[in-house]
Amino acid sequence: MFAERTQLALDLVGVFFFAVTGALLAARKGFDIVASALLAGATGLGGGVIRDLIIGVRPAALEHPVYLLPVVLAAAVVYLFFPHVSRFRRTLLLFDAAGLGLFCVTGTEKALAAGVPAVSAVLLGVTSAVGGGLLRDVVAREVPSVFRDDDIYALPAMAGAAAVAVLWWVDALSVWTGVAASVVTFALRALAVRNRWRAPLAYRRQPPDG
Amino acid sequence: MFAERTQLALDLVGVFFFAVTGALLAARKGFDIVASALLAGATGLGGGVIRDLIIGVRPAALEHPVYLLPVVLAAAVVYLFFPHVSRFRRTLLLFDAAGLGLFCVTGTEKALAAGVPAVSAVLLGVTSAVGGGLLRDVVAREVPSVFRDDDIYALPAMAGAAAVAVLWWVDALSVWTGVAASVVTFALRALAVRNRWRAPLAYRRQPPDG
Amino acid sequence: MFAERTQLALDLVGVFFFAVTGALLAARKGFDIVASALLAGATGLGGGVIRDLIIGVRPAALEHPVYLLPVVLAAAVVYLFFPHVSRFRRTLLLFDAAGLGLFCVTGTEKALAAGVPAVSAVLLGVTSAVGGGLLRDVVAREVPSVFRDDDIYALPAMAGAAAVAVLWWVDALSVWTGVAASVVTFALRALAVRNRWRAPLAYRRQPPDG
Repeated sequence: MFAERTQLALDLVGVFFFAVTGALLAARKGFDIVASALLAGATGLGGGVIRDLIIGVRPAALEHPVYLLPVVLAAAVVYLFFPHVSRFRRTLLLFDAAGLGLFCVTGTEKALAAGVPAVSAVLLGVTSAVGGGLLRDVVAREVPSVFRDDDIYALPAMAGAAAVAVLWWVDALSVWTGVAASVVTFALRALAVRNRWRAPLAYRRQPPDG
Repeated sequence: MFAERTQLALDLVGVFFFAVTGALLAARKGFDIVASALLAGATGLGGGVIRDLIIGVRPAALEHPVYLLPVVLAAAVVYLFFPHVSRFRRTLLLFDAAGLGLFCVTGTEKALAAGVPAVSAVLLGVTSAVGGGLLRDVVAREVPSVFRDDDIYALPAMAGAAAVAVLWWVDALSVWTGVAASVVTFALRALAVRNRWRAPLAYRRQPPDG
Repeated sequence: MFAERTQLALDLVGVFFFAVTGALLAARKGFDIVASALLAGATGLGGGVIRDLIIGVRPAALEHPVYLLPVVLAAAVVYLFFPHVSRFRRTLLLFDAAGLGLFCVTGTEKALAAGVPAVSAVLLGVTSAVGGGLLRDVVAREVPSVFRDDDIYALPAMAGAAAVAVLWWVDALSVWTGVAASVVTFALRALAVRNRWRAPLAYRRQPPDG
């Protein structure tokens, strides 16, 4: 398990990455600065809050107002630098991938620490990782990233969450192996975007015998 | 009240029915197989998770990873057989009606067992029954079934949930009467679809005295 | 802190205001009377339920079925009088502003009473105030009020919630000061709509030095 301070630090970095994607989308959509901060907050904190509610603990973001810092910082950074960001889509995807990598690891770890069965912990890790972005896209009326068919999104998070469960099982989960799992998840997602890795569709296009 | 094993069995069947509707919609929308499983999971488990969070218990799907089986099964069934399903809309409506019938009964029963006032229990039963489908339609950007005006949707679920509360009040709630209430709810909804039963609109079109 | 009866009375009035906006939108969209009542319920009760879940208490609306009265009343009032409401948009905005004013105050007060840090309590107050309307707009597939760029929406709620936290801090929070904060919040929001007060956009349109 992670020390509490480590958990908090990783969480805050993950919140910042996701919050930036919320503020970027808000800027893209012409929202005002308050709506930008709110969408940044929903994106950065949403996945973790859902996870904590399901586990049955008071959301960390509620107990520790420091979670608001990365949200405000993200809205400020986007406010100041958005016009310079010519490659909006790429920036959003990169920050989203970084948040995905961190949250699938910290989410799974928190669920395991709460005594949830390993399979459920993996799913809760995935929920933390995709929940904030799903909330962002639903309230901003975009096609949710997790359902876009142009490249795999949930699979890297599932791989990262499963890796954490295995590391925990063999008693090898530490900050270093956890961060390594985050980086691998991020790299898998970034490569998926770059190379348009796709999963099979939800149905077989051609039945086997006509 | 139901025995725990009965509750679980009815739940798993209901999850399967709703999960099939999620996977069907995913296939219709061209999502990939992972997104299909996630949408199947959100549809099958969403209503029950919302109900359990409001009641204040840890969601059953979290405690018992067996809840994932019907979700995976549903995604697999749709993957294998979707091309043969020429009548997509009818299939989705039928499975949705079956899930509605089961969940309004098990949802109300669980709420009553948790000591919730009867009126609230009925509403929680309706929430369990319509919640998963609402989540499915919102994240897939469809008009939610519960708000479509072409036939009644929530009324059969309300009738089924109210029947469970009455049965419980007169101490006649058993597996058999519960399943009977499910079947009646399913039949009411299926007849509503077939015969386009409609409720009055949300406002009177003509004011009484001009 | 408020007495329990006062809290309940203020809550019920706030639920009625928001529920009317849900029923109005349902009428506008051509939903039926059952969907109208459900959307009224989601709008009127949604923000408070989310707040209570995050605080970790059983939602008040679940414990006290009297919360359903203003919901049913709102659907009935809209059913009876909607055709006479020629100025749909203005009516919706006014009732929404009234709900916003009440809920940012009662929400913050409930969070403070539950021992949440003051900053988090303010945010929970804002969440209660904007949550129901956000839910209404998302499920009815409208652009959420909180993200519309034509006038400020969340800022008045933030001001009201912050005022409550300050009043509580200086031990001056009573029914009268609480209601005063509600009225000021309502007035700010109503003036914002009338005069099209806007916040700066989420990004600076022109970089300072090219």
